Amino acid sequence: MKDKADVLIVGSGPAAWTAAIYASRANLNPLVVAGFMKGGVRGGQLMTTTEVENYPGFVDGVSGPELMEILEKQARRFGTEVLETDVTRIDTSKRPFVVETKKGNVAAETVIVATGAYAKRLEVPGTEEYWNKGISACAVCDGALPLFRDKDLLVIGGGDTACEEALYLTKFGSKVHIALRRDVFRASKIMAERVMNHEKIEVHYNYQLEKVEGEQFLTKAFLKGNDGSSKELEVSGLFFAIGHTPNSDFLEGEIARDESGYLLVEGYTSKTSIEGLFAAGDVADKRYRQAITSAGMGCMAALDAEKFLAEQTQEV
Amino acid sequence: MKDKADVLIVGSGPAAWTAAIYASRANLNPLVVAGFMKGGVRGGQLMTTTEVENYPGFVDGVSGPELMEILEKQARRFGTEVLETDVTRIDTSKRPFVVETKKGNVAAETVIVATGAYAKRLEVPGTEEYWNKGISACAVCDGALPLFRDKDLLVIGGGDTACEEALYLTKFGSKVHIALRRDVFRASKIMAERVMNHEKIEVHYNYQLEKVEGEQFLTKAFLKGNDGSSKELEVSGLFFAIGHTPNSDFLEGEIARDESGYLLVEGYTSKTSIEGLFAAGDVADKRYRQAITSAGMGCMAALDAEKFLAEQTQEV
Repeated sequence: MKDKADVLIVGSGPAAWTAAIYASRANLNPLVVAGFMKGGVRGGQLMTTTEVENYPGFVDGVSGPELMEILEKQARRFGTEVLETDVTRIDTSKRPFVVETKKGNVAAETVIVATGAYAKRLEVPGTEEYWNKGISACAVCDGALPLFRDKDLLVIGGGDTACEEALYLTKFGSKVHIALRRDVFRASKIMAERVMNHEKIEVHYNYQLEKVEGEQFLTKAFLKGNDGSSKELEVSGLFFAIGHTPNSDFLEGEIARDESGYLLVEGYTSKTSIEGLFAAGDVADKRYRQAITSAGMGCMAALDAEKFLAEQTQEV
Repeated sequence: MKDKADVLIVGSGPAAWTAAIYASRANLNPLVVAGFMKGGVRGGQLMTTTEVENYPGFVDGVSGPELMEILEKQARRFGTEVLETDVTRIDTSKRPFVVETKKGNVAAETVIVATGAYAKRLEVPGTEEYWNKGISACAVCDGALPLFRDKDLLVIGGGDTACEEALYLTKFGSKVHIALRRDVFRASKIMAERVMNHEKIEVHYNYQLEKVEGEQFLTKAFLKGNDGSSKELEVSGLFFAIGHTPNSDFLEGEIARDESGYLLVEGYTSKTSIEGLFAAGDVADKRYRQAITSAGMGCMAALDAEKFLAEQTQEV
């Protein structure tokens, strides 16, 4: 195993592989530590997606796992090395950084953190079975799929994202239900009002998801009221919009994060609070969270790392 | 011709088409005004590139024009409309904005400016003939190509970019010449020193490019000294690093730009100084300037425009 690297990249999604493509093409011999993180899936959130229609470059779309395979191959083509294990901690108090993995330590001059995030979902009976068969955690990614066109849909959540997703889905679905646990939206007033006033949206206050059922695809969702009552909704789509969690716990105490755990970057760059440590993709982006934006940030991080290394005065 | 649009996109490169993919998939029926701008090429800077090896998604690379064709097809697949003409001005004093084109005016609720930039190049005898046949304006894009491996190369310029490109090229070329008009680098001290101290780099102060020659590909560059002397360099690669100019003149006086004409955006977003007008790609990015970062910003701009439209209170 390589025990030192000029550029060490943590992650295995579009941000990580794009950083690797750029860094390897710049002859920096990057090491990608492709971990499993939350969810146990190497390749990130796209591995649990079927059709990706909005990644620019594929006229007829591409499957999530296929896209990840292509990006990894492209990175390996230019000499990227890959270590399959999880990073447990990065000691940023020393130069070079000490990256601790389950397979040993690596000394790294620069580190690019591209560990992604995971969408929170409720685990009630049926949700695992119908994941990707009517259940999604991203309306922007999946809402336009034929599966959801002119069908009744359900959004779970009461925040801004839930409202945005419900409004977005009105473009495609015949009707959109939205269920929230409380008797009032947590979302901003303007978004909540737009949802409440939308003719295609029905709001179910004080209701939680109890279970889902279907045949080959999802057909029904059961809600349970805080008062003990039940509702049965015939829906072809269920969208969780109860937030995301960035995979950044292994950096706790080392680096500046926001209150939800997202790494903070400086403006339109990949620079974090620690010199030489860069961030890319969903771990640093709660606003856009798309494969293409992550890839863009991966490129930015590699160029920032390259520049950082070039500017290091060689006082040997 | 469509005379109004919720989302009007100006440009025809990766930022524009990606914005169109996202906006059309969100049922916003975007209108792309694909102009010719400086250089007269629809499709942007990639149209003058042969092999693109670092756009993630193509293991064996893709040609610039082919990539643009794919992105345009993908955008049209979801209902993007395209108008082929140049935008001459955008009147942002009214809502909706009035976008003036050579084929008439379009009223637009939101506008995404993705007009790109162009690399400055010196027009001396031979540069047009050997463009892409040894001459490039982007070391990061092209430096790793086989054409330049273990060959002598020449960089024209004396600023930070020129120094970065020269240092970058030392990874690939056997020797790197750098020629600058003045007797001192305009670059930061640290970058200039790294260039001056690099064993593979030879600096030619007070020299300008006079002409180039070659056979199928570039083989020679001739420099002319400020003192009248001449130098003949046997080089296989010539990289212009004398800056870029963003295509933003048609927005003069309408919007906040930096001293070089780049549109200013707010942090890691596509928001400009004008509400409802968003920027993406090289016209707003002097730091990274890659196809993949432009595509990422195109996506950001479409999502920002979508959100802006959703938040508009409908007081009808």
